[in-house]
Amino acid sequence: MLLIHLFIYLGIIAAGVSGALVGIKKELDLFGVVCLCIATSLGGGIVRDILIGNLPPAAFVDAKYFFVSLTSGLFTWIFYQKIKRMNHLVISDAIGLGVFTAVGSNTAMSLFSDNYFLILSMGLITGIGGGVLRDIFSKEIPYVFKKEVYAIASIVGALSFILIHGTVSNTFAMYVCLLVTFLIRIIAVIYKINFPIYREKTDLPSNL
Amino acid sequence: MLLIHLFIYLGIIAAGVSGALVGIKKELDLFGVVCLCIATSLGGGIVRDILIGNLPPAAFVDAKYFFVSLTSGLFTWIFYQKIKRMNHLVISDAIGLGVFTAVGSNTAMSLFSDNYFLILSMGLITGIGGGVLRDIFSKEIPYVFKKEVYAIASIVGALSFILIHGTVSNTFAMYVCLLVTFLIRIIAVIYKINFPIYREKTDLPSNL
Amino acid sequence: MLLIHLFIYLGIIAAGVSGALVGIKKELDLFGVVCLCIATSLGGGIVRDILIGNLPPAAFVDAKYFFVSLTSGLFTWIFYQKIKRMNHLVISDAIGLGVFTAVGSNTAMSLFSDNYFLILSMGLITGIGGGVLRDIFSKEIPYVFKKEVYAIASIVGALSFILIHGTVSNTFAMYVCLLVTFLIRIIAVIYKINFPIYREKTDLPSNL
Repeated sequence: MLLIHLFIYLGIIAAGVSGALVGIKKELDLFGVVCLCIATSLGGGIVRDILIGNLPPAAFVDAKYFFVSLTSGLFTWIFYQKIKRMNHLVISDAIGLGVFTAVGSNTAMSLFSDNYFLILSMGLITGIGGGVLRDIFSKEIPYVFKKEVYAIASIVGALSFILIHGTVSNTFAMYVCLLVTFLIRIIAVIYKINFPIYREKTDLPSNL
Repeated sequence: MLLIHLFIYLGIIAAGVSGALVGIKKELDLFGVVCLCIATSLGGGIVRDILIGNLPPAAFVDAKYFFVSLTSGLFTWIFYQKIKRMNHLVISDAIGLGVFTAVGSNTAMSLFSDNYFLILSMGLITGIGGGVLRDIFSKEIPYVFKKEVYAIASIVGALSFILIHGTVSNTFAMYVCLLVTFLIRIIAVIYKINFPIYREKTDLPSNL
Repeated sequence: MLLIHLFIYLGIIAAGVSGALVGIKKELDLFGVVCLCIATSLGGGIVRDILIGNLPPAAFVDAKYFFVSLTSGLFTWIFYQKIKRMNHLVISDAIGLGVFTAVGSNTAMSLFSDNYFLILSMGLITGIGGGVLRDIFSKEIPYVFKKEVYAIASIVGALSFILIHGTVSNTFAMYVCLLVTFLIRIIAVIYKINFPIYREKTDLPSNL
């Protein structure tokens, strides 16, 4: 088994935990928590497979990803009090973003190798799609639209995959994509780098 | 015409009425009420067909399901005062859940007969997908994620379909699936069986 | 270049501006504003292409529509104070509704020429789909379900396309569809024509 598979499972688990945490906070029942967990883990890949016509999506053809995600959801339910306090979730989440971006870019590259725009889009959608689904199911504006350098890390990662692809092996290109995405995301977290939000200038005097 | 077709129409009508009732309560206009009605009736099957690559979805190829749903929506609009007080809606709703699960499992079985995980997933998604779409369109967290033994009835029903399939005729297996789903759902309603919701233990003294 | 292409770009820009305006009002960050802009511009066509199995969707195959939409989003961000006060946006929005309906009907006709129900549905979904996605992403009940003669304009436009198709050239039929949709929408805006909303009769005396 390649190292990349370990990272894929880690990404699925990190995403599943984030989905389950939101589900518990929103007072969903156990079924709802598990659904949110699975949607967050596998949703990005499912949306990508729908868009590129790879049907049924990989997540339905091979159940092993489903069971990994399901297990992470049940663990989050059982050990909620401990898991919700874990600060290093941000690290596995960043690995997840990186590995999903790498897998998405690679899948699109294997089918449509000459369309860089499509490859970039599929890297991004695989990277952030699960989180967007999680937020829509839990009646929130997608977090990725509101805060933090999250999507940009995925975009730059997918770009790096496209740039070095062809000169190195596929697997190596995926590792580079993972690393670039991970580093940008972690740097953004450490230095609290956010994207601008439009602030309306008010003409009212602030005082008197 | 087989009896199963009668149940299918009953399921479409029950789902359509539930969608239209939500639409009227949310103060949508007549077009919105009809859209919500149709999304609830046909949404589960449309999502299933997208996922298994059966495109365009059956609901767009043959308009008769659309017109049955549309009619149920207009009836709900006209007779809203009477329909909103009908308690036995829960029975036709349970029939709908059962028949959608049976149709979804059977459709997936006809295309991918050896992938039980896919068949189970498609039974469930056909069963609950319409209600999930209805709730997202009306800005609610999907009801099926929050309350009651609803999805589990569909899952067990699809399992029963997979188990007896091959030993009996297709149609008979669908009736069994319908009956199992229906009974579990009705029993859960009668005995008010709910799935657990995570309750945080507070360490604060409740008094003083 | 045919005139219809100019209208298509105008429609993409009008939809993109409407998406970006909502994004800024909802206090999304720049990435979120751009995402909402692109979802509104291209979402209707993407959903249509998923439903008719035209995968990957046209918007991912040819990046030029993406870049037109992206540019409209960035312009809206930069010139927000001016653009938000523009009343004639309603005119370009109506052109957008008309041209998306025409393109959607024509695309479905080219693949499934004998299924009028499908053609009508795809015209409508291409016309209103982007706005529905915009509203779901920004946690609102889709505007088109709540107010104004918007969808009906698209439905009648698609009907006119189906009726005259075959007797005139494809392109001419698209212009007729655009014009019919545009006129109905504009007349509805001018005369403030709304679809009925169900009002519950209260038995309470309104006074004393």
